[in-house]
Amino acid sequence: MKGANGVNGVYVIGVGMTAFGKHPDRLAADLAAEAILGALDDAGLRTVDIEAAWVGHVFQGMAMGQRGLGAAGISGLPITNVENACSSGSTAIYQAAMAIRAGAHDIVLACGVELLSTKFRGALAPDETDIETQIGLTMPAVYAMRARRHMEQYGTTPRMLAAIASKNKFNASLNPLAQFKKPVSVDEVLAGRMIADPLHLHECAPVSDGAAAVVMVSAGKLAELGRTRAVRLAASALRSGKMEVGLPDMTVEDLTWRTAEAAYQEAGLGPEAIQLAEVHDCFSIAEATRIEGLRLYPRGEYPARVERGEASLGGRLPVNTSGGLLGKGHPLGATGVAQVIEIVKQLRGEAGARQVPDAKVGLAHCRGGKARGVEGTACTVNILTV
Amino acid sequence: MKGANGVNGVYVIGVGMTAFGKHPDRLAADLAAEAILGALDDAGLRTVDIEAAWVGHVFQGMAMGQRGLGAAGISGLPITNVENACSSGSTAIYQAAMAIRAGAHDIVLACGVELLSTKFRGALAPDETDIETQIGLTMPAVYAMRARRHMEQYGTTPRMLAAIASKNKFNASLNPLAQFKKPVSVDEVLAGRMIADPLHLHECAPVSDGAAAVVMVSAGKLAELGRTRAVRLAASALRSGKMEVGLPDMTVEDLTWRTAEAAYQEAGLGPEAIQLAEVHDCFSIAEATRIEGLRLYPRGEYPARVERGEASLGGRLPVNTSGGLLGKGHPLGATGVAQVIEIVKQLRGEAGARQVPDAKVGLAHCRGGKARGVEGTACTVNILTV
Repeated sequence: MKGANGVNGVYVIGVGMTAFGKHPDRLAADLAAEAILGALDDAGLRTVDIEAAWVGHVFQGMAMGQRGLGAAGISGLPITNVENACSSGSTAIYQAAMAIRAGAHDIVLACGVELLSTKFRGALAPDETDIETQIGLTMPAVYAMRARRHMEQYGTTPRMLAAIASKNKFNASLNPLAQFKKPVSVDEVLAGRMIADPLHLHECAPVSDGAAAVVMVSAGKLAELGRTRAVRLAASALRSGKMEVGLPDMTVEDLTWRTAEAAYQEAGLGPEAIQLAEVHDCFSIAEATRIEGLRLYPRGEYPARVERGEASLGGRLPVNTSGGLLGKGHPLGATGVAQVIEIVKQLRGEAGARQVPDAKVGLAHCRGGKARGVEGTACTVNILTV
Repeated sequence: MKGANGVNGVYVIGVGMTAFGKHPDRLAADLAAEAILGALDDAGLRTVDIEAAWVGHVFQGMAMGQRGLGAAGISGLPITNVENACSSGSTAIYQAAMAIRAGAHDIVLACGVELLSTKFRGALAPDETDIETQIGLTMPAVYAMRARRHMEQYGTTPRMLAAIASKNKFNASLNPLAQFKKPVSVDEVLAGRMIADPLHLHECAPVSDGAAAVVMVSAGKLAELGRTRAVRLAASALRSGKMEVGLPDMTVEDLTWRTAEAAYQEAGLGPEAIQLAEVHDCFSIAEATRIEGLRLYPRGEYPARVERGEASLGGRLPVNTSGGLLGKGHPLGATGVAQVIEIVKQLRGEAGARQVPDAKVGLAHCRGGKARGVEGTACTVNILTV
């Protein structure tokens, strides 16, 4: 399989997102429009400059992208709606990059959007054809099993897992666009309601609404526009696979590693070059298995390292400086784009109180899909550099 | 906006589809797998040869493509689910072509799938936020208004519109994979139940299940494989816009023309070069406004020309030789891929009783989206040549 890099570089020159949280009074199209117009403003471009768009979402219905761009006053373009479960927004970025690399377009938009709070009460509706769901193996149950296995195998403690959630809630408290504004201590996490033992309420991603968008350009267009705050998309990889729920070891994220390996190869660098990462922490344990799957920390050691502060702001390799899904919120389709936005802000030195000093290389990781033990999971890894 | 053609050619070397019709006993993933394995068999390739896939569908839920490829025994690839309403399958082709043009992949799969019969009773559920739907402006009503306007403006008669449906049902009777097997005379169409005056039952596309898939390769890979039945994808265009329900003239398909214009330019040919066309005949009148929007027949004249046999098999420019949506059936996501399959079969000279003699250039057109008067419609035009 050939890499997707090709001769043309791809650069992010504008980012925009809504506040993540509950927006029951708004339409998904309006949220998308706010993010899109924010990204255009940040890029110093007008609506007519956009040549094509990709819009990621999961539950927003037919022609979401057309409605969202329409609400932003953008009309007539090639627009493609993409869905890859929780990787939908990052897949929009992947496809938008592909179009630039094809030479088809020079200025493109990738957007992610989801309005969940008015569609679901409490949790996402399980798929009725899903046998695992029918026997009670919902997402929290799947991740609780992984947590138990990680504890059994590596001596991970509930307190270490709670430290992941506490770190992300703290980071979120420094992010004006995050859903959660208040730091939560490890003790507070552990005192929270048990959702699926050993995972407490604060260790599970919330129901969120929001949208995020990025403007991406070709190397040629970047030179023409002369933007100085551009961040290079050094790799954008997508792979699919099964969710690891069975043998030999459900704590090993084979799919995450296969995707990361493709991205590292495309970017021409390895895990040792990554200075900060946004990863798909839909549950506290998920951040651990993903970071280990990306080989950013040694297998089995991540929760203990978090407890020692290594993944915190100021630590060796900060993870989810934005607050992650646990702190910033998780509007499914918007998540992958918002992760890339955090990396872009960090690499521009515009992350404010969350700034990682001298950040030059960051990674964003998403994965999601059905719990059932069949092929049904999508994973993306985007690597950005300045 | 630059064309999407670039230096590499894109070729279709394998096609496969299920019978269209009612498959209430099957899963969407199984239908997709049947189409995919058929396309691979036709291409003389194995499952491991596929490098990436795009899967179009509208109502099949999360990670449909991953489930469909999984059911076909294909694992681990970059897979992207795309949705553009009734243009979802053709958008999968558009994206797959983009990946080849980007140099990212040499052998890719585009698939479309939809299982509607067990999800909906009678008709698609309208979107509850859709004001036009709330006041009764459902799809049949929208198209009935267009038919009335066409009648008013050009002297089109109900009999002429019925001739479109009769032609397509006849073509379907020659297509072993079509949902409808029996020719229906113009009088029988006119004697049918009125759905939305002047549109009778046979003038409205049915609820259908089915899947369709094509294998596409780069020029370099084609040379390496040495396949002799390859058909070139000379253009693949995608545009969005509003559905024409208002002033100045709802019979004029501005969006279809804008998309076609891009495709003609990309292929380096004009409407006069097209020898046969598959167009989105969700209603009899829709075939007329689309064919006129594509400029394949003069504006206002198409229904009368159909009555005179010009668009029939053996006519000047046959339209919907496959049976179209009215005769072959309309499993939403599968439709755009199945249209391309019909063109491929015709250009290969493998269309049997439906064969258009010496066919060298064919066009496939899809469009669909929300009825409401906002941006929410996607249109695709694919042009194929040998």
